[in-house]
Amino acid sequence: MAKIVKFKKYGGPEVLEFEDIEVASPASREVRISVKAIGLNRAESMWRTGVYVEPVNLPGRLGYEISGVVDAIGSEVTHVAVGDVVSTMPSFSMNDYGMYGELVLAPAHSVVKHTDDISFEDAVAIWNVFITPYAAFVEGNRVKAGNTVLIPAASSGVGIGAIQVANMIGAVPIALTRTGAKKAELLAIGASHVIATDEEDMVAEVMRLTDGKGADFAFDPVGGPNFPKLVAGTAVGGTILIYGALSNDVTPLPMLEVLAKRITIHGYNLFTTTTTPELQKAAVEFVLGGLAQGKLKTLIAQRFKFADIVEAHRVLEKNQHVGRLVVEV
Amino acid sequence: MAKIVKFKKYGGPEVLEFEDIEVASPASREVRISVKAIGLNRAESMWRTGVYVEPVNLPGRLGYEISGVVDAIGSEVTHVAVGDVVSTMPSFSMNDYGMYGELVLAPAHSVVKHTDDISFEDAVAIWNVFITPYAAFVEGNRVKAGNTVLIPAASSGVGIGAIQVANMIGAVPIALTRTGAKKAELLAIGASHVIATDEEDMVAEVMRLTDGKGADFAFDPVGGPNFPKLVAGTAVGGTILIYGALSNDVTPLPMLEVLAKRITIHGYNLFTTTTTPELQKAAVEFVLGGLAQGKLKTLIAQRFKFADIVEAHRVLEKNQHVGRLVVEV
Repeated sequence: MAKIVKFKKYGGPEVLEFEDIEVASPASREVRISVKAIGLNRAESMWRTGVYVEPVNLPGRLGYEISGVVDAIGSEVTHVAVGDVVSTMPSFSMNDYGMYGELVLAPAHSVVKHTDDISFEDAVAIWNVFITPYAAFVEGNRVKAGNTVLIPAASSGVGIGAIQVANMIGAVPIALTRTGAKKAELLAIGASHVIATDEEDMVAEVMRLTDGKGADFAFDPVGGPNFPKLVAGTAVGGTILIYGALSNDVTPLPMLEVLAKRITIHGYNLFTTTTTPELQKAAVEFVLGGLAQGKLKTLIAQRFKFADIVEAHRVLEKNQHVGRLVVEV
Repeated sequence: MAKIVKFKKYGGPEVLEFEDIEVASPASREVRISVKAIGLNRAESMWRTGVYVEPVNLPGRLGYEISGVVDAIGSEVTHVAVGDVVSTMPSFSMNDYGMYGELVLAPAHSVVKHTDDISFEDAVAIWNVFITPYAAFVEGNRVKAGNTVLIPAASSGVGIGAIQVANMIGAVPIALTRTGAKKAELLAIGASHVIATDEEDMVAEVMRLTDGKGADFAFDPVGGPNFPKLVAGTAVGGTILIYGALSNDVTPLPMLEVLAKRITIHGYNLFTTTTTPELQKAAVEFVLGGLAQGKLKTLIAQRFKFADIVEAHRVLEKNQHVGRLVVEV
């Protein structure tokens, strides 16, 4: 028997409950993993409240990213073996697989074998965090060396990843954060500039920092009422890539400004990258290379015990942390 | 002395007034034109009410597209001569030039010499109407043969142009119009399908017509509360190009759907094409070629006398017409 997390109805962190289940043997293209660590994603709290990209087939499971040791493999799995140290990356529907558990099944394509020098807790703080900005910036050559990049929600896991990836490719990351509280931390992580959006005139600051031109690129997981300011801070011919929808409010699209400035808005998620073998391979190489060179660094904000998963989700939603929340199993 | 139109304050059609002025000699890169016809654009009514892409330096002039005969040329103008039959295309700020007048100055780059077989009234019904969809679809190869294209405001001048340009390049135009009133006309112009958005379930119809896939491309000059339906009717990986903002209401951007479906939204205006010589040349060739082959046809909705410019703007705003409103000077 293994302990897993499920929820029977949409709601706050308290709907998460434990259940002891018998985990099946892996199907031909599945891997069974004995879990050591879970990395929490904001998408999982949206999933739990029923506002993610697809509805949950309740009762639902959840979780994208774990690390652990391979316990069993399906008949067609060749890239990992029993005993390998592995981690999983977001590349499946949580209606099909949920990774919060002591022992879990994962689709083989989501499982990456990794080298010994990455700890279990670091291994759950790299894929979503670094592949999201990597694919957004590098695939299609969207962000070029010297480009300025606006990064709203800069202290989120992916925001911190984006600051590092921007530096790695020679771009200039401008971190946006609500208050001045996390300014020093964001500068230490590598932000070229930090703008506290509740305290400063964001658009005026961006214009000052870009000689009145605006930013070449914005990388937004928020939307909501501040979106028009992001458009105002974007240069003529610039690009806004949206990869999340953290705001619960309507996102107004300023049509006339978008067309006058010929701005492109790309809806983006990392699934294309994580489910296409050659793109996934390039992404993994970029991330592992960056970690090996010390250009990418994981940042763990707080650790929780598996029994405290409800509390971990409460902290996730409070959004006061800088870096990754990791649950040790 | 020549009669021109100006307005001293923002407002309804009634703010337009006539003035007799002495028109200066053309500067080195200007052309002076004796005007024969004016084509009305919705942008000019937005300009008059103060909601266009830039504020008006009041008192303001207005007008983008005229046809007429060259009366005088500046010292550096070589592509047209006195006596040539010409027309102008939108490629300047109306704070610098306004084309509503009996005798007007135009920047040389906006002036196209055209062949004798195009009448003065046809000549004011081709540039914005056909270059807008041409550049949107053809530049960057955005719309491919076989693609389905949603065309909101299909009975507008550019909407009708878009139906024809889509057919010319082998795409499948789906016309969107509020009621069934203009259905037969839109089918006659070349729409593959017409959806009356106030009377039918637009998204369900688009899905039915595209085997559940959604449209590859949408070409929207409206925005506003129906924009999320346009997103819902767009295929995974599809593109929405926005080229106008006719709705006065907020345009909600459905972030999560846009990112889940990896939709691209391009803000677009034809100025890049009309102010870049090689792009303008290709566009003019495409349009004149299409007209010569009978694949593009002008459609004049109604003719007005110059003295009735206020009434012409009233009709422009009522939005009941199908095709171009032309003022004869």
